Amino acid sequence: MSVKWKLKQAEEVVDQLDFSKLNGLITVVVQDWQTNEILMCAFANREAILKSLTTGIAHYYSRSQDKLWQKGEISGHIQELKEIYIDCDDDTVLFKVDQKVAACHEGFRGCFYRKLSENGELELVGEKVFDPSEVY
Amino acid sequence: MSVKWKLKQAEEVVDQLDFSKLNGLITVVVQDWQTNEILMCAFANREAILKSLTTGIAHYYSRSQDKLWQKGEISGHIQELKEIYIDCDDDTVLFKVDQKVAACHEGFRGCFYRKLSENGELELVGEKVFDPSEVY
Repeated sequence: MSVKWKLKQAEEVVDQLDFSKLNGLITVVVQDWQTNEILMCAFANREAILKSLTTGIAHYYSRSQDKLWQKGEISGHIQELKEIYIDCDDDTVLFKVDQKVAACHEGFRGCFYRKLSENGELELVGEKVFDPSEVY
Repeated sequence: MSVKWKLKQAEEVVDQLDFSKLNGLITVVVQDWQTNEILMCAFANREAILKSLTTGIAHYYSRSQDKLWQKGEISGHIQELKEIYIDCDDDTVLFKVDQKVAACHEGFRGCFYRKLSENGELELVGEKVFDPSEVY
Protein backbone atom coordinates (compact mmCIF):
# COMPACT_ATOMS: atom_id res chain seq x y z
CA MET A 1 0.00 0.00 0.00
CA SER A 2 1.30 3.41 -0.91
CA VAL A 3 1.23 6.64 1.04
CA LYS A 4 -0.87 9.51 -0.34
CA TRP A 5 -1.24 13.14 0.55
CA LYS A 6 -4.19 15.50 0.32
CA LEU A 7 -4.09 18.01 -2.52
CA LYS A 8 -3.61 20.99 -0.19
CA GLN A 9 -0.69 19.29 1.56
CA ALA A 10 0.82 18.29 -1.78
CA GLU A 11 0.55 21.86 -3.03
CA GLU A 12 2.36 23.13 0.05
CA VAL A 13 5.20 20.69 -0.59
CA VAL A 14 5.44 21.68 -4.24
CA ASP A 15 5.48 25.36 -3.28
CA GLN A 16 8.51 24.72 -1.12
CA LEU A 17 10.50 22.98 -3.88
CA ASP A 18 12.92 24.91 -6.07
CA PHE A 19 12.17 24.19 -9.73
CA SER A 20 14.23 27.14 -10.95
CA LYS A 21 17.61 25.46 -11.42
CA LEU A 22 16.62 22.96 -14.11
CA ASN A 23 14.07 24.87 -16.19
CA GLY A 24 11.06 23.84 -14.15
CA LEU A 25 12.34 20.43 -13.09
CA ILE A 26 13.83 18.87 -10.00
CA THR A 27 15.83 15.67 -9.71
CA VAL A 28 14.22 12.60 -8.19
CA VAL A 29 16.33 9.74 -6.84
CA VAL A 30 14.40 6.51 -6.52
CA GLN A 31 15.38 3.91 -3.97
CA ASP A 32 13.91 0.50 -3.14
CA TRP A 33 12.32 1.03 0.28
CA GLN A 34 13.38 -2.40 1.51
CA THR A 35 16.78 -3.18 -0.02
CA ASN A 36 17.97 0.47 -0.37
CA GLU A 37 19.09 -0.29 -3.92
CA ILE A 38 19.07 2.82 -6.08
CA LEU A 39 16.62 1.94 -8.81
CA MET A 40 16.77 4.98 -11.08
CA CYS A 41 17.05 8.71 -11.30
CA ALA A 42 14.51 10.89 -13.09
CA PHE A 43 13.18 14.43 -13.35
CA ALA A 44 9.87 15.86 -12.21
CA ASN A 45 8.00 19.10 -12.75
CA ARG A 46 5.38 20.57 -10.41
CA GLU A 47 2.61 18.50 -11.97
CA ALA A 48 4.56 15.24 -11.62
CA ILE A 49 5.26 15.84 -7.93
CA LEU A 50 1.63 16.82 -7.27
CA LYS A 51 0.39 13.74 -9.09
CA SER A 52 2.86 11.48 -7.24
CA LEU A 53 1.84 12.81 -3.85
CA THR A 54 -1.90 12.76 -4.41
CA THR A 55 -2.04 9.31 -6.04
CA GLY A 56 0.77 7.58 -4.12
CA ILE A 57 2.16 6.33 -7.45
CA ALA A 58 5.41 7.78 -8.81
CA HIS A 59 5.07 10.16 -11.76
CA TYR A 60 7.90 11.93 -13.57
CA TYR A 61 8.46 14.31 -16.42
CA SER A 62 9.78 12.76 -19.61
CA ARG A 63 12.22 15.15 -21.25
CA SER A 64 12.43 13.04 -24.41
CA GLN A 65 8.64 13.01 -24.83
CA ASP A 66 8.03 16.38 -23.18
CA LYS A 67 5.16 15.14 -21.03
CA LEU A 68 4.01 13.85 -17.67
CA TRP A 69 4.84 10.20 -17.33
CA GLN A 70 3.54 7.63 -14.86
CA LYS A 71 6.34 5.15 -14.31
CA GLY A 72 4.98 1.79 -15.44
CA GLU A 73 2.11 3.16 -17.52
CA ILE A 74 3.04 0.81 -20.37
CA SER A 75 4.82 -2.02 -18.55
CA GLY A 76 2.66 -2.08 -15.43
CA HIS A 77 5.86 -1.80 -13.43
CA ILE A 78 4.59 0.95 -11.18
CA GLN A 79 6.23 2.40 -8.09
CA GLU A 80 4.15 2.75 -4.93
CA LEU A 81 5.42 5.58 -2.75
CA LYS A 82 6.44 4.55 0.72
CA GLU A 83 8.52 7.48 1.97
CA ILE A 84 9.55 10.85 0.59
CA TYR A 85 12.55 12.93 1.61
CA ILE A 86 13.58 16.41 0.49
CA ASP A 87 17.19 17.54 0.30
CA CYS A 88 18.78 20.57 1.95
CA ASP A 89 18.50 22.73 -1.18
CA ASP A 90 14.85 21.86 -1.92
CA ASP A 91 15.84 20.86 -5.44
CA THR A 92 16.14 17.08 -5.14
CA VAL A 93 13.61 14.61 -3.81
CA LEU A 94 14.15 11.03 -2.71
CA PHE A 95 11.33 8.57 -3.35
CA LYS A 96 11.50 5.32 -1.41
CA VAL A 97 9.23 3.01 -3.34
CA ASP A 98 7.77 -0.44 -3.60
CA GLN A 99 8.84 -1.23 -7.17
CA LYS A 100 6.67 -3.72 -9.04
CA VAL A 101 8.80 -6.14 -11.13
CA ALA A 102 11.60 -3.79 -12.21
CA ALA A 103 12.48 -0.13 -12.72
CA CYS A 104 14.70 -0.38 -15.78
CA HIS A 105 13.34 -0.58 -19.32
CA GLU A 106 16.26 -2.86 -20.17
CA GLY A 107 14.77 -5.60 -18.00
CA PHE A 108 16.94 -5.18 -14.92
CA ARG A 109 15.61 -4.47 -11.46
CA GLY A 110 17.37 -1.10 -11.41
CA CYS A 111 19.11 1.09 -13.98
CA PHE A 112 22.58 0.90 -12.43
CA TYR A 113 23.35 -2.64 -13.55
CA ARG A 114 26.82 -1.86 -14.92
CA LYS A 115 29.75 -1.47 -12.57
CA LEU A 116 33.06 0.03 -13.57
CA SER A 117 35.72 -2.58 -12.86
CA GLU A 118 39.21 -1.64 -11.73
CA ASN A 119 40.55 -2.29 -15.22
CA GLY A 120 38.09 0.19 -16.70
CA GLU A 121 35.55 -2.24 -18.11
CA LEU A 122 31.84 -2.20 -17.46
CA GLU A 123 30.76 -5.40 -15.74
CA LEU A 124 27.16 -6.51 -15.81
CA VAL A 125 26.18 -6.84 -12.15
CA GLY A 126 22.39 -6.87 -12.40
CA GLU A 127 20.18 -9.79 -13.21
CA LYS A 128 17.51 -9.58 -15.89
CA VAL A 129 14.08 -9.97 -14.36
CA PHE A 130 11.99 -9.53 -17.50
CA ASP A 131 12.39 -9.53 -21.27
CA PRO A 132 11.84 -6.01 -22.64
CA SER A 133 10.78 -7.34 -26.06
CA GLU A 134 7.78 -9.00 -24.39
CA VAL A 135 6.75 -5.92 -22.44
CA TYR A 136 7.20 -2.87 -24.69
CA MET B 1 41.40 3.52 0.45
CA SER B 2 39.78 4.70 -2.71
CA VAL B 3 39.72 3.14 -6.16
CA LYS B 4 41.46 5.00 -9.00
CA TRP B 5 41.59 4.57 -12.73
CA LYS B 6 44.31 5.31 -15.26
CA LEU B 7 43.79 8.40 -17.40
CA LYS B 8 43.24 6.40 -20.58
CA GLN B 9 40.60 4.22 -18.89
CA ALA B 10 38.95 7.28 -17.37
CA GLU B 11 38.82 8.95 -20.78
CA GLU B 12 37.15 5.91 -22.28
CA VAL B 13 34.49 6.01 -19.57
CA VAL B 14 33.89 9.72 -20.09
CA ASP B 15 33.61 9.20 -23.85
CA GLN B 16 30.82 6.74 -23.25
CA LEU B 17 28.77 9.08 -21.05
CA ASP B 18 26.04 11.28 -22.51
CA PHE B 19 26.57 14.89 -21.41
CA SER B 20 24.19 16.27 -24.03
CA LYS B 21 20.94 16.25 -22.07
CA LEU B 22 21.94 18.70 -19.34
CA ASN B 23 24.15 21.18 -21.17
CA GLY B 24 27.38 19.31 -20.62
CA LEU B 25 26.48 17.77 -17.28
CA ILE B 26 25.36 14.40 -15.99
CA THR B 27 23.66 13.59 -12.71
CA VAL B 28 25.63 11.86 -9.97
CA VAL B 29 23.87 10.04 -7.15
CA VAL B 30 26.08 9.51 -4.13
CA GLN B 31 25.52 6.60 -1.79
CA ASP B 32 27.32 5.52 1.37
CA TRP B 33 29.10 2.33 0.31
CA GLN B 34 28.45 0.63 3.65
CA THR B 35 25.02 1.78 4.87
CA ASN B 36 23.50 2.43 1.39
CA GLU B 37 22.21 5.78 2.66
CA ILE B 38 21.80 8.27 -0.18
CA LEU B 39 24.11 11.07 0.83
CA MET B 40 23.54 13.65 -1.89
CA CYS B 41 22.92 14.27 -5.54
CA ALA B 42 25.12 16.50 -7.67
CA PHE B 43 26.12 17.26 -11.25
CA ALA B 44 29.38 16.58 -13.04
CA ASN B 45 30.92 17.64 -16.33
CA ARG B 46 33.58 15.71 -18.26
CA GLU B 47 36.38 17.25 -16.23
CA ALA B 48 34.75 16.37 -12.90
CA ILE B 49 34.28 12.73 -13.88
CA LEU B 50 37.85 12.48 -15.21
CA LYS B 51 39.21 14.05 -12.03
CA SER B 52 37.09 11.75 -9.83
CA LEU B 53 38.23 8.62 -11.63
CA THR B 54 41.92 9.50 -11.80
CA THR B 55 42.21 10.73 -8.19
CA GLY B 56 39.72 8.38 -6.50
CA ILE B 57 38.19 11.43 -4.78
CA ALA B 58 34.75 12.68 -5.79
CA HIS B 59 34.66 15.89 -7.82
CA TYR B 60 31.57 17.64 -9.14
CA TYR B 61 30.60 20.69 -11.11
CA SER B 62 29.19 23.55 -9.10
CA ARG B 63 26.43 25.24 -11.07
CA SER B 64 26.17 28.11 -8.60
CA GLN B 65 29.90 28.86 -8.79
CA ASP B 66 30.35 27.66 -12.37
CA LYS B 67 33.45 25.63 -11.63
CA LEU B 68 34.96 22.25 -10.84
CA TRP B 69 34.46 21.41 -7.19
CA GLN B 70 36.15 18.80 -5.05
CA LYS B 71 33.63 17.74 -2.45
CA GLY B 72 35.18 18.59 0.90
CA GLU B 73 37.75 21.05 -0.43
CA ILE B 74 36.82 23.51 2.34
CA SER B 75 35.44 21.24 5.04
CA GLY B 76 37.82 18.33 4.55
CA HIS B 77 34.76 16.11 4.29
CA ILE B 78 35.96 14.31 1.20
CA GLN B 79 34.45 11.27 -0.49
CA GLU B 80 36.70 8.37 -1.37
CA LEU B 81 35.38 6.43 -4.33
CA LYS B 82 34.69 2.77 -3.67
CA GLU B 83 32.47 1.71 -6.55
CA ILE B 84 31.08 3.37 -9.66
CA TYR B 85 27.99 2.35 -11.61
CA ILE B 86 26.59 3.77 -14.85
CA ASP B 87 22.90 3.78 -15.66
CA CYS B 88 21.19 2.35 -18.74
CA ASP B 89 21.05 5.72 -20.53
CA ASP B 90 24.69 6.67 -19.85
CA ASP B 91 23.54 9.96 -18.35
CA THR B 92 23.58 9.20 -14.64
CA VAL B 93 26.39 7.83 -12.53
CA LEU B 94 26.25 6.27 -9.09
CA PHE B 95 29.20 6.86 -6.78
CA LYS B 96 29.44 4.55 -3.80
CA VAL B 97 31.75 6.39 -1.43
CA ASP B 98 33.46 6.38 1.90
CA GLN B 99 32.20 9.75 3.19
CA LYS B 100 34.43 11.48 5.71
CA VAL B 101 32.37 13.11 8.52
CA ALA B 102 29.32 14.22 6.54
CA ALA B 103 28.10 15.05 3.04
CA CYS B 104 25.69 17.87 3.82
CA HIS B 105 26.79 21.46 4.34
CA GLU B 106 24.03 21.80 6.92
CA GLY B 107 25.89 19.46 9.26
CA PHE B 108 23.92 16.29 8.64
CA ARG B 109 25.43 13.05 7.42
CA GLY B 110 23.40 13.24 4.21
CA CYS B 111 21.31 15.90 2.47
CA PHE B 112 17.99 14.04 2.73
CA TYR B 113 17.44 14.68 6.43
CA ARG B 114 13.82 15.83 6.08
CA LYS B 115 11.05 13.30 5.65
CA LEU B 116 7.55 14.18 4.52
CA SER B 117 5.19 12.97 7.21
CA GLU B 118 1.74 11.65 6.40
CA ASN B 119 0.17 14.92 7.56
CA GLY B 120 2.32 16.85 5.09
CA GLU B 121 4.92 18.21 7.49
CA LEU B 122 8.67 17.88 7.10
CA GLU B 123 10.13 15.91 9.98
CA LEU B 124 13.81 16.15 10.83
CA VAL B 125 15.09 12.59 10.63
CA GLY B 126 18.82 13.15 10.39
CA GLU B 127 21.22 13.79 13.22
CA LYS B 128 23.66 16.72 13.14
CA VAL B 129 27.20 15.43 13.10
CA PHE B 130 29.02 18.76 12.88
CA ASP B 131 28.36 22.46 13.36
CA PRO B 132 28.49 24.25 10.00
CA SER B 133 29.43 27.56 11.64
CA GLU B 134 32.66 26.00 12.87
CA VAL B 135 33.57 24.48 9.49
CA TYR B 136 32.68 27.02 6.79
